[in-house]
Amino acid sequence: MRAATDAKTPTNAKDFAAAQQAFLPVIENVAAQGRIILVCEHASNHVPPAWGDLGLTEAQRQAHIAWDPGALAVSRGLSQRLDAVLIHAPVSRLVYDCNRAPDMAGAMPARSEVYDIPGNAMISTAERLARTEAVYLPWANGLHGLIATRIALGLRPVVVTIHSFTPVYHGKPRRVEFGVIHDADPHFSVAILNAARKLTGLQAELNAPYSAADDVTHTLRVQATPYGLPNAMLEIRNDLIATAAAAEAMADQLAAVLNMGLVEIQRQAKAS
Amino acid sequence: MRAATDAKTPTNAKDFAAAQQAFLPVIENVAAQGRIILVCEHASNHVPPAWGDLGLTEAQRQAHIAWDPGALAVSRGLSQRLDAVLIHAPVSRLVYDCNRAPDMAGAMPARSEVYDIPGNAMISTAERLARTEAVYLPWANGLHGLIATRIALGLRPVVVTIHSFTPVYHGKPRRVEFGVIHDADPHFSVAILNAARKLTGLQAELNAPYSAADDVTHTLRVQATPYGLPNAMLEIRNDLIATAAAAEAMADQLAAVLNMGLVEIQRQAKAS
Repeated sequence: MRAATDAKTPTNAKDFAAAQQAFLPVIENVAAQGRIILVCEHASNHVPPAWGDLGLTEAQRQAHIAWDPGALAVSRGLSQRLDAVLIHAPVSRLVYDCNRAPDMAGAMPARSEVYDIPGNAMISTAERLARTEAVYLPWANGLHGLIATRIALGLRPVVVTIHSFTPVYHGKPRRVEFGVIHDADPHFSVAILNAARKLTGLQAELNAPYSAADDVTHTLRVQATPYGLPNAMLEIRNDLIATAAAAEAMADQLAAVLNMGLVEIQRQAKAS
Repeated sequence: MRAATDAKTPTNAKDFAAAQQAFLPVIENVAAQGRIILVCEHASNHVPPAWGDLGLTEAQRQAHIAWDPGALAVSRGLSQRLDAVLIHAPVSRLVYDCNRAPDMAGAMPARSEVYDIPGNAMISTAERLARTEAVYLPWANGLHGLIATRIALGLRPVVVTIHSFTPVYHGKPRRVEFGVIHDADPHFSVAILNAARKLTGLQAELNAPYSAADDVTHTLRVQATPYGLPNAMLEIRNDLIATAAAAEAMADQLAAVLNMGLVEIQRQAKAS
C-alpha cells in the first residue's frame, strides 16, 4: 500500500483544516418549470489542488473511474428539452462520491474497477470528515433545498439521476445500453423502461448494469424516497455519448422517454 | 375565516422577502461523545416579530398547540446524563413544524386541536415557501450535518426525538404517560418500551398517543431511516414534566431507559 503522501494529499487533520473549503454543487436552469429535478453526481473529474492528483496518471483521471463521461452533456441536453432544473457535483467522485453515504467504502474509494487510487489508500478519520464537510454536506443541502422548496410550492418534484457506465468492466463487455434503476418505489422506473422500449432501439434493462442492492441508489434513498417522490436512476453506456453530438442525440431520445414516463405515472396517480 | 392581516402577519411575498431571515437550529453539547443525537423539534413557543402574534392570545401561545411544554427541559437533562448532542428548533411549530414536510397541512397548521390559528388561515404559496426557507431548510441542514459528520467519523449515531403531549385532548383524558413511536424500523423503540416497563412505573405504550400513520415521524423518516440508523420518537405526557424538578426527575428515569435500550440493540447487533 502506498502512503497517502505519495499522492501529495494532506496527511493530517491540520493540513486538511487548512485546505478545507466548501465545494458547492452547481445548479443550472433554476427557474425551470418542469416537474423533474435532474441530478448528476458524477458530472466532473475535477480534483481540487488540496488533493493533488490522488496518485493517478492524467489518463486515469480522464477515465470512468473519476467521473461519468458524457453524463453532464446528456443532463444539460435534458435540462433544456424538459425545462428541468439540473444540479451537478463540482468535483470528482474519487474525492467524494456524492451518491454514497460517508461511511461507505465507495464514498472515497481506495480501488475502482481495476485501478488503485493511491491518494485514497490511507484516509484518516479526520480526512474522511473533512471531505464529507467540504463536498457531501453542501451537495446534500443543495439538492434537499431544491426538493423541499418545490414541495413547499405545492409541486411534487420527480427526481432523476443521470449516470454513464463503461462498456467494458473487469474485461467483460456489457450488452445493456440503457439501464433504469429504482430504489424502494419502482413505478417511475418501470414506466421509463417501457417508454424506452417503445420509443428507442436501445437495449434497455431494469436494474442493470447494477441495482439498489449494490448501494448505488443513495441519492434516491436519502432525498426522494423519504418524501414519497417518484424517482429513477438512469445509466447510459458511455460509448453511446462520447461526443457532443452523440450526447445531444441521446438527450433527444431520453427527453421523449422521460416525458412518456411522466405521462404514465400521472395517469396512474389519477386512476388510483 | 379571518384574513391573515388580522394576525398582523405579512400578506404578500414582498413583505415576506423583507422579513425573511434564517432561524438556525440551536445545537448544544456539540462535542458530546455519546452515541445518541437528541432532537427536540417543538422546544420553543417563540413567534418571531415577522409573524406577529398569529392572531392568538398570550394564553394560546403558551399552550401545547405552540410547542411541547417541558420537552426541552427533559432533552437538556438527557443531554447531560447521556453525554449526547442536542439540537432544537428556535421557533414555534405554529410558524413551521420542523417535524412535518413542507406540503403537510400540519407544517403550518390552520387549526390545532380545538384552536383556530388565524395567522395560518390563509397562507399564500409565497408565504409557505418563505417559512420553509426560513425555518425548515436550516433545521434540516443542521440535523443532517450532525448525522452525516458522525457517520463520517465511523460512528453510527442513534436518533431520538423528544416530545410532550397534552393530558387532555379534544376533552378526553389520556391514560398513557410515556409513548414510544417508531418509523420503518421498530427495534430500538421496542427495546426502549421494554426498558421503560422494567425500570419505571410509567404507563408506557408503543405507538401512542399516535403513530407513524399520523405522519408524526417525519424527522425519523427523512433523517434516520434512509441511513439505516436506529431511531425512536419519545412522547411524554406534559403534566408529568410541568416543573423544572419534574423534568429533571423524568430525565433521570429516561436516561436509564435509553441506556438500557442502547445496550439491548448493541447486543442484538452483535448477535446478528
